[in-house]
Amino acid sequence: MPHIALPEGVPGILGPMAFRPETAKPLNELAEILLRGPSTLSPGERELIATYVSSRNDCVFCQSIHGAVAAYHLGGNVQLVLDVKQSAECAAVSDKLKALLAIAGEVQRGGKHVTTGEIERARRAGATDVEIHDTVLIAAAFCMYNRYVDGLATWAPREPEAYREPAAKLAREGYVESTMRLAATPPSAAA
Amino acid sequence: MPHIALPEGVPGILGPMAFRPETAKPLNELAEILLRGPSTLSPGERELIATYVSSRNDCVFCQSIHGAVAAYHLGGNVQLVLDVKQSAECAAVSDKLKALLAIAGEVQRGGKHVTTGEIERARRAGATDVEIHDTVLIAAAFCMYNRYVDGLATWAPREPEAYREPAAKLAREGYVESTMRLAATPPSAAA
Repeated sequence: MPHIALPEGVPGILGPMAFRPETAKPLNELAEILLRGPSTLSPGERELIATYVSSRNDCVFCQSIHGAVAAYHLGGNVQLVLDVKQSAECAAVSDKLKALLAIAGEVQRGGKHVTTGEIERARRAGATDVEIHDTVLIAAAFCMYNRYVDGLATWAPREPEAYREPAAKLAREGYVESTMRLAATPPSAAA
Repeated sequence: MPHIALPEGVPGILGPMAFRPETAKPLNELAEILLRGPSTLSPGERELIATYVSSRNDCVFCQSIHGAVAAYHLGGNVQLVLDVKQSAECAAVSDKLKALLAIAGEVQRGGKHVTTGEIERARRAGATDVEIHDTVLIAAAFCMYNRYVDGLATWAPREPEAYREPAAKLAREGYVESTMRLAATPPSAAA
């Protein structure tokens, strides 16, 4: 049961977003820019970084929904998402993304854990300063979203299937549109 | 030295905010609503929560600037800020704020650490659902800001005096105005 009176049957971050729309606005705008804004990293790559960090923070809702969004962008490759969560170094992703995932993993532990060696590795693999910046901020932001979702003890479906349709909507329409509408949907009408 | 090419001499979060104004916008708007928007928690109380979490994350820049903003709002009571950082339970703050600081401390460790016992304690001390929500989100947000600042290895002055004047400006003008202007100031003209 959530720690505060959130709308019933609304999963994960959508409950607190419906409860407090004032803060939902910048939270959604940040996700939109980081995960879907103009970038040399693909939406699939950025969603993988978000999923990886959420998995390391053991946040069921965030790793499920962003994992499903990542899979959607990656042509339905659910296995690649599972591989990245299990071991980013062994997954079939580019050397650049492996290096960025390693940086994201350090940020998850704490900002000071990122080493110059890890930054140099990312640069050798072709990462730009903006890509490194965005990786650090995506990882940091998911340390916030994950704590927001779990710090209020929100409810989340356990079955991966429950996330497929909402994830496809998010992938098509983005975070600002979809989440504001979902949060405004009466629980009984939400799928 | 910062991990990426940030403007020189611009302290803490202001460097990456100048580097990437697109993400600075929602980051500043979130801080503005959480720390200065309409609330039954005073700006001083909210800045104390931000400072406490930043201190636990060992982020020099954030604990220094928000500690100085807190002290400004608390009539210049620098000692109270130091007391809260050292031991929130023993500091001369209300029972409600002590209970909220305890929740913030758990969020800093991870969202799942927050217990129903800690929530009940806050409620017995008079905390509302919105106050509990905002405490969790302030703590979560500073786990982001702190990681952003340290994950890019930004530079920060060590002397508390360096933060006094910028903090007074932030306290008077808010996060959106002040930080966007500071970030746009050429380093040589800053301070």
